[in-house]
Amino acid sequence: MAVNAPLARLIEQFRALPGIGQKTAARLAYHILDMSLDEAKSLSAAILNAKEKMGYCKVCFNLSDKSPCEICDSKKRDHSVICVVENPQDIAAMERMRDYKGVYHVLHGAVSPILGIDPEDLRIKELLIRLQETDVKEVIIATNPNLEGEATAMYIAKLIKPAGIKVTRIGSGLPVGSDLEYADEITLSRAMENRREI
Amino acid sequence: MAVNAPLARLIEQFRALPGIGQKTAARLAYHILDMSLDEAKSLSAAILNAKEKMGYCKVCFNLSDKSPCEICDSKKRDHSVICVVENPQDIAAMERMRDYKGVYHVLHGAVSPILGIDPEDLRIKELLIRLQETDVKEVIIATNPNLEGEATAMYIAKLIKPAGIKVTRIGSGLPVGSDLEYADEITLSRAMENRREI
Repeated sequence: MAVNAPLARLIEQFRALPGIGQKTAARLAYHILDMSLDEAKSLSAAILNAKEKMGYCKVCFNLSDKSPCEICDSKKRDHSVICVVENPQDIAAMERMRDYKGVYHVLHGAVSPILGIDPEDLRIKELLIRLQETDVKEVIIATNPNLEGEATAMYIAKLIKPAGIKVTRIGSGLPVGSDLEYADEITLSRAMENRREI
Repeated sequence: MAVNAPLARLIEQFRALPGIGQKTAARLAYHILDMSLDEAKSLSAAILNAKEKMGYCKVCFNLSDKSPCEICDSKKRDHSVICVVENPQDIAAMERMRDYKGVYHVLHGAVSPILGIDPEDLRIKELLIRLQETDVKEVIIATNPNLEGEATAMYIAKLIKPAGIKVTRIGSGLPVGSDLEYADEITLSRAMENRREI
């Protein structure tokens, strides 16, 4: 065999990552063997460091190295507007837009009968408690504009509306079936403007 | 900022890898935060382990965790036939073919005036010494079938032929301009059959 165990193990590890096939995994592994030892050490350390330092904010469940996270802790943000998203990646996308000044709530998924994800598996209970404990004027539901995201939006809206809180859904502008994480800033900005009450 | 320093550093590290853009880097980083700590540790360790354990074979300059490598050390291989390749990845491709029984020599690149790679930067001197010290019947030059690979092949052939050693170039079958590393087994097999003397 031309590929030795330490190299084979590294290729296998890369292959387990999402969107990385056999050839990309091999290319990455060979690239690492071409790096200096210091570069390899700093990649290796960055993985462990991120994993060890990053956790969930106890308020909004965003990934953060602090709890409460920087956004939940900021006095510059409008804490009476909560934008509900599926994943921490979605917050990064929203923040790139730069004109949303409210706070967030991360559900960590969307309701999906096919994948066996029930509302209880999401951070919905924590959102309801949060709404009881703080003075919130508007909840913007920014789950992905696909089947699961829409169903989750409807489910949450139904739970919140009786409390008299304004519930909006981010609007058209995002192509249906796409992924919020990869939306460009302008499309996302338009979607925020066109949000409608549900 | 929604992305904290440990996460940002990890994204940046992934982005430095070949073929990984901003979005793939972010996706990989978030995936790692979703892994168990054990999984992250084993990825991190695989990187360091590969880097620390793998070195170059002192005979053929292939990447290996031993020196001489398994191929150079094998009694089952025909040590009188040397296949000259640009990179260790190319050996992995050749070995997947399963019908080459000779040994290898890795140049670690190809002559390229544009990239400033001179013959002295490659392991050509080591190949010549190897040919003097051992009894070699044939040198198969399997550098990539592109401008740099062809120039390198011609350069090496010119140096070796005076010593009366048969020099061949791997043949048609590989589409010109492509990369040997990604050739399929059948194309590669045909190219080996059709090798011609230069």
